[in-house]
Amino acid sequence: MTNTQVTHVQIDNYGPWTVTPEPRREVDLQTLQSRLYADLAQLFGNRDGYLFFSRFDNMVAVTNGLDRNDHARIQESVGNRYPVSMSLSVATADTPADALGTATERLQQAGSAQDEGRREVLKTDILPPEDRTPTDVQLAHFDVDDATGKYTDQLNEFDTFIQIEQGYATLMKYMRLAHDSLSFFVGGDNIIAVCSALDREDYRDAIDHVQESVGVELKVGVGRGRDAATAGMDAKHALEACRETGQPVTFADRS
Amino acid sequence: MTNTQVTHVQIDNYGPWTVTPEPRREVDLQTLQSRLYADLAQLFGNRDGYLFFSRFDNMVAVTNGLDRNDHARIQESVGNRYPVSMSLSVATADTPADALGTATERLQQAGSAQDEGRREVLKTDILPPEDRTPTDVQLAHFDVDDATGKYTDQLNEFDTFIQIEQGYATLMKYMRLAHDSLSFFVGGDNIIAVCSALDREDYRDAIDHVQESVGVELKVGVGRGRDAATAGMDAKHALEACRETGQPVTFADRS
Amino acid sequence: MTNTQVTHVQIDNYGPWTVTPEPRREVDLQTLQSRLYADLAQLFGNRDGYLFFSRFDNMVAVTNGLDRNDHARIQESVGNRYPVSMSLSVATADTPADALGTATERLQQAGSAQDEGRREVLKTDILPPEDRTPTDVQLAHFDVDDATGKYTDQLNEFDTFIQIEQGYATLMKYMRLAHDSLSFFVGGDNIIAVCSALDREDYRDAIDHVQESVGVELKVGVGRGRDAATAGMDAKHALEACRETGQPVTFADRS
Amino acid sequence: MTNTQVTHVQIDNYGPWTVTPEPRREVDLQTLQSRLYADLAQLFGNRDGYLFFSRFDNMVAVTNGLDRNDHARIQESVGNRYPVSMSLSVATADTPADALGTATERLQQAGSAQDEGRREVLKTDILPPEDRTPTDVQLAHFDVDDATGKYTDQLNEFDTFIQIEQGYATLMKYMRLAHDSLSFFVGGDNIIAVCSALDREDYRDAIDHVQESVGVELKVGVGRGRDAATAGMDAKHALEACRETGQPVTFADRS
Repeated sequence: MTNTQVTHVQIDNYGPWTVTPEPRREVDLQTLQSRLYADLAQLFGNRDGYLFFSRFDNMVAVTNGLDRNDHARIQESVGNRYPVSMSLSVATADTPADALGTATERLQQAGSAQDEGRREVLKTDILPPEDRTPTDVQLAHFDVDDATGKYTDQLNEFDTFIQIEQGYATLMKYMRLAHDSLSFFVGGDNIIAVCSALDREDYRDAIDHVQESVGVELKVGVGRGRDAATAGMDAKHALEACRETGQPVTFADRS
Repeated sequence: MTNTQVTHVQIDNYGPWTVTPEPRREVDLQTLQSRLYADLAQLFGNRDGYLFFSRFDNMVAVTNGLDRNDHARIQESVGNRYPVSMSLSVATADTPADALGTATERLQQAGSAQDEGRREVLKTDILPPEDRTPTDVQLAHFDVDDATGKYTDQLNEFDTFIQIEQGYATLMKYMRLAHDSLSFFVGGDNIIAVCSALDREDYRDAIDHVQESVGVELKVGVGRGRDAATAGMDAKHALEACRETGQPVTFADRS
Repeated sequence: MTNTQVTHVQIDNYGPWTVTPEPRREVDLQTLQSRLYADLAQLFGNRDGYLFFSRFDNMVAVTNGLDRNDHARIQESVGNRYPVSMSLSVATADTPADALGTATERLQQAGSAQDEGRREVLKTDILPPEDRTPTDVQLAHFDVDDATGKYTDQLNEFDTFIQIEQGYATLMKYMRLAHDSLSFFVGGDNIIAVCSALDREDYRDAIDHVQESVGVELKVGVGRGRDAATAGMDAKHALEACRETGQPVTFADRS
Repeated sequence: MTNTQVTHVQIDNYGPWTVTPEPRREVDLQTLQSRLYADLAQLFGNRDGYLFFSRFDNMVAVTNGLDRNDHARIQESVGNRYPVSMSLSVATADTPADALGTATERLQQAGSAQDEGRREVLKTDILPPEDRTPTDVQLAHFDVDDATGKYTDQLNEFDTFIQIEQGYATLMKYMRLAHDSLSFFVGGDNIIAVCSALDREDYRDAIDHVQESVGVELKVGVGRGRDAATAGMDAKHALEACRETGQPVTFADRS
């Protein structure tokens, strides 16, 4: 069993802000979004959490080990430095999908994402410290087998991107539906999935599904830990082992 | 006809760097990538270009109006501020896909993306100033119809994201294959496509294709200009007009 | 008595790097320096430390509560994201000046600031957790009395700056020589001093000295705490009290 | 004669904002200020201007070659990305001090720096393109002779800083009063002065004054150009020549 604490980050009333009083320059919006993501990645990451950019105006973090106070401080720091504010909702469950489901639901109850009056909501259902275990979080780090040799050095960059994107779109949907897991593209040919307690067969199954659906070959390293940083680093090392052994699925030793 | 100047940005030997001597913390890689993107977005954007993050280690820019010297300076600025360097290849063609095809090809000829010795390549086939016209660039700004009402305020954030992602994966592939156009997700429920000379029917066709394939309803504003900034801002205004009139496709007046 | 843990941050071999192979653009150096400072301010600040930019290539932090591991991680994060590396040396003493003296000395023993071979030194003489008390750190937040009314709205900006700068240069030297305290300009008309155990008379004395030497009138709020963040926030509130009461020196209640 | 276009940058109503509704965390203010400076340095620098942080809430830029439209765009970009706005005032004169005097005065006429209602003022008295010449801007790049050997590797970091700071405080005041020039500390042991048309003797005089007053030995490279970037890079090369020849004052060839 996993016990994943998930935080739903939502910029308050962002859509309307981007076009009020008239559309803002795209370059500034892109800069704002990516810097906010970078700052939040550091703010969560320095507390051993992982943040994923997903849609940028809505982001998802794995936050085992962060308490209400940590979340309040992150929210305050963004409020002090950005022209927009953000709401945070935290929930914990056996599967990442369930945790996020609860987190989003509580945020929706507080008002619409485009409700002018709903600002800096902070809902925190924190995993109690005494319930935390060294295997609460399972992270899987996927990449595309020999992406540079097969795609980057062969196709034009957009056609390479199409391959990576079709692989990601297929995996992220399948992992959600079949395994209650949340998969995020993190750049290059890399995808990190926040998983429920999956075994070797589950990962093989997902890799096969992507291969059969869109012809993209993935391999995956899996790590498990008390928090995202530990599980994620173990997953990276396991993925390196895949590269060395040619095995498509590798679990880190302590997973 | 369009005449799009496209720049392929590629971080040199990035994959190996991320795992040498051992895997670097994901939070730092994410911060590095998103800040590099933000900086480049500003560096291109301040010269009226548009940059898209695509895979982060490989990015695509529309750079009509930027010359070799501008590209050299951007390359130098990144070299002065980041632990990684990047190569740039610029080409121009009637369609964005052809332009990128040439740009990537020239980069590939200079060496592999993971060639240790290939650093700071600068290939620039610049559109001559005397050939530039006020309609060289066509940009289309798509968004999902009522995404907040249908998805963000209803589903859990990942299930919303699945909808947006399936819509994007379908559109980006179709626009490439059917229309030689390059479509990029830019956050929220927004997609910006760099297009060849498409007409109203072409856009309707693309929107219909996405609707039929994955059930996601898009609308689009289209702008045209001498450079990406002009075309992009016109596209945004046209998309606002869609919101007001309910029309799924709107061309900016001067498009 | 205070017990201040001080960290000396030094960019390795920075001077030579800025002119090799030839001088780098000043705009890029300024961007690099100020972003590195901002990142480090966050990295230390998220652990309740305070960082001061001082000379940018050498910075000083108050780090009560941060252990060797925290420092190692901060050093690693910078190494992952910047083209330069940095060395860190941590020491603790009754006075901030003594602590910094020891920290710098240990760094110097490891090699010159411009020694090519000296990289990422990490010397950590950490205040043991069991020795920490709620009054270890004393911070004083000075500002110039009515700077906006007297200077900013009256003089040209450089002449205002001269006033602030002469005030700062006088205070920082005096506080060091008379009180073993380290004072840093933090923008606007604000100076934060990391102090040994000073009393009301000491602060009056320093304020008088500046007034008599260069005619700049200061006021000061003083806070004390287990770490820099607590002491610093208390000092800010005390300075607000100065504004309300007209008293030039205010100690926070728990100081 | 020089013809320097100077821009006074002032964050609107910043002081009150930092303490409303109660004092904001210093770490966030420091991050905000230094990032705003870095962003503006890039925004001005990419148009061949130079920005100096001076007090951070008030900054000074040399902007020969930037027109009203450039300034408007920079102002807009900051407005889109920060929780604070800023006012800009541009003026040109024979001496930098006169130019800044006029710029500040026009800003003051528009309202106090702490006037809640005064936001995003944009006053632009731009140097007409037809009046620009290749010698409009004179920049001088000073550094402290052998600062590493004499100070950094010998004294504790704060005592080194005291030397640099006393040298700077003395130089910046003297250059203003004797030579209508504006000198800014730019990190390390470096000072950049925006000068009126000074000759070799003037620089010797300034260096002697600092040496006699506070015992700090400076050397200086001087460049001249159509804009700040050109003059500044020439000054850097000239300073390198000082290092090689041992001469305390070097003018770049084309100065």
